[in-house]
Amino acid sequence: MRKNYLLTPGPTPLPPEVCQALSRPIIHHRTPQFQAVLKEANEGLKYVFQTASDVFILASSGTGAMEAAVTNLLSAGDTALTIQAGKFGERWTELCRAYGIDAQVLDVEWGKAVSVREVEKKLKNNPRIKAVFATLCETSTGVVTDIEALGRIIKDTAAVLVVDAISGLGAINLESDAWSCDVVVSGSQKGLMLPPGLGFISVSPKAFRLIGASRSPRYYFDLRLAKKALDKTDTPFTPAITLVIALNESLKMLKEEGLQNVFLRHKKMAEATRSAMAALRLKLFAPSAPSDVVTAVCVPGAIDGEKLVKTMRDTYGVTIAGGQEELKGKVFRIAHMGYIEEFDIIACISCLEKVLHEAGYKFELGAGVRAAEEVFLK
Amino acid sequence: MRKNYLLTPGPTPLPPEVCQALSRPIIHHRTPQFQAVLKEANEGLKYVFQTASDVFILASSGTGAMEAAVTNLLSAGDTALTIQAGKFGERWTELCRAYGIDAQVLDVEWGKAVSVREVEKKLKNNPRIKAVFATLCETSTGVVTDIEALGRIIKDTAAVLVVDAISGLGAINLESDAWSCDVVVSGSQKGLMLPPGLGFISVSPKAFRLIGASRSPRYYFDLRLAKKALDKTDTPFTPAITLVIALNESLKMLKEEGLQNVFLRHKKMAEATRSAMAALRLKLFAPSAPSDVVTAVCVPGAIDGEKLVKTMRDTYGVTIAGGQEELKGKVFRIAHMGYIEEFDIIACISCLEKVLHEAGYKFELGAGVRAAEEVFLK
Repeated sequence: MRKNYLLTPGPTPLPPEVCQALSRPIIHHRTPQFQAVLKEANEGLKYVFQTASDVFILASSGTGAMEAAVTNLLSAGDTALTIQAGKFGERWTELCRAYGIDAQVLDVEWGKAVSVREVEKKLKNNPRIKAVFATLCETSTGVVTDIEALGRIIKDTAAVLVVDAISGLGAINLESDAWSCDVVVSGSQKGLMLPPGLGFISVSPKAFRLIGASRSPRYYFDLRLAKKALDKTDTPFTPAITLVIALNESLKMLKEEGLQNVFLRHKKMAEATRSAMAALRLKLFAPSAPSDVVTAVCVPGAIDGEKLVKTMRDTYGVTIAGGQEELKGKVFRIAHMGYIEEFDIIACISCLEKVLHEAGYKFELGAGVRAAEEVFLK
Repeated sequence: MRKNYLLTPGPTPLPPEVCQALSRPIIHHRTPQFQAVLKEANEGLKYVFQTASDVFILASSGTGAMEAAVTNLLSAGDTALTIQAGKFGERWTELCRAYGIDAQVLDVEWGKAVSVREVEKKLKNNPRIKAVFATLCETSTGVVTDIEALGRIIKDTAAVLVVDAISGLGAINLESDAWSCDVVVSGSQKGLMLPPGLGFISVSPKAFRLIGASRSPRYYFDLRLAKKALDKTDTPFTPAITLVIALNESLKMLKEEGLQNVFLRHKKMAEATRSAMAALRLKLFAPSAPSDVVTAVCVPGAIDGEKLVKTMRDTYGVTIAGGQEELKGKVFRIAHMGYIEEFDIIACISCLEKVLHEAGYKFELGAGVRAAEEVFLK
């Protein structure tokens, strides 16, 4: 017998309520029955996005929603600022360039957060910047961006603030309206505790004006079509019916727990994880701006990082993530996001201790778990 | 108590095996476990597409796969021929035009099939046509296109044949390779008996050459990225994990029944439906080229077509489809596709008889069901 634990930054584990909803007989999408589902989902998403604006549901992964942001806001030849502090920041740049948009890259060292002053400077020096593309939680490094501060400096400029909140939404605080985020993009398989296959995108009134003006070619992700349909509680193309139905289950769970409690739970799990790593004398990869979504940890010198992740997963059933691109083998990442609570974290740390011990790493057995328990007892 | 019957041309009912697969705990997609799933799915799709070429799995609805076909094959300024015999043929034209492609429209009267001679003439008169966009089964009218004949006249030209087989694949015969189809597009919620949320696209060697040359901007649907990933049994972006796992269940069912038997089952159900309509003195909307996928039936003069569909669904639990766009209220459509067998058809016809009777339509009660039974007994 082996139980499986999933502590990866997407997909995250599915609550039983979601699994059950996924297995229901399917209903047709052009019916009053599905309209009621869609209405409930649209309203629930506004709660989680903390916005009064429309949130569109796309049948795509998060990257599809990112593409929708780029092509609906900007046209070839437009200038954008992309904040690039890891793999997912790079995706904004790649997307802009695929559509002929002049992406001015603000390169940030992996593991560091962007300096808001730097963004301000770039905006002042280049008034042609029409959009700033940021990442709430850079999953590849575990760093969290100060979106509130970015919103403050961008809101009175002509530019719009676009936030990739794929990792983080529904796990850490993101006040789309209060923080002047114009477009917030997310996906289903992270804080929303669903399988991948849904993309989400909210659009502020300021951003809507750009959508009307964009000349970028688009069809499947055309938010003009999506808006027309949404106004009739419909979607322009066949929605991913099953996932939308399951979304209402996870939205219900988030509402019942209350967003602030959800954020607190994530904060505690992250603190416990960081504290455990310190007790095991493991260094955080991003100590200056660690997110409460995922913790990236440096692999100690004598340990094979890829083997560590593999052994935890294939021998003991605990799946965490390894490093991506330049961090391959150098870090491992423990996600504490979604349908995860303290004893999942304890199990994960215990498994990490076991594998480190077997690999000959010197530390006091149980020290990581104890440190986490101390945080959870507070 | 009320049981629900779903006889719509997408979504189609889910087999219990698929429902159960959908409710399994999720696994991470960058693991050997999911790689095995993806490999099995890719191979199974080749069987259903009847092709030796790659079939790509996209996290999108079928329209996303249609967009992938357009943007990966053609660039702004290129010329295409779109066969437009209903709502879904129109989608090809809209997609081409959204990307600046000169779509030469071959307009066909709704309810009729395209004349292959007409296509041949268009191709001869305009050697700049780089792609012909066709629809296997035009769901809005119930008409089937003779793809084999189209392939025969296109294969020796420079143009590629692109087939929207969203409705029809896995239900009626489509020999992608033998019929010289260069690109075949499909979706999950039709013959493949899954919820919506997956798009599929196969690409012949002839079509692959166009993909390298296309200058259309694209990212999420960029098949160059998809090909690079597929060669490592991977996907460029997070796949819709749950749906891919469930896909292997429906592929297994299709293999066990055998494609030829699957086609035969659909053919019989379609014949039974058409025979029942004749017995009820109801006219087919497309008698000259009716598909074995969906049957469009003219609403008799004295009957309110929209109310008929609504009563069947909301009072009796039998969901069929109404007419779309210019056919709204004028036809109803009974799909006999996917996880459907003879007694579903019998139930549907019986319900139709009941509602027609209640609406005061004159006919011999039971005549439709008897006519269907006679076909099934053959």
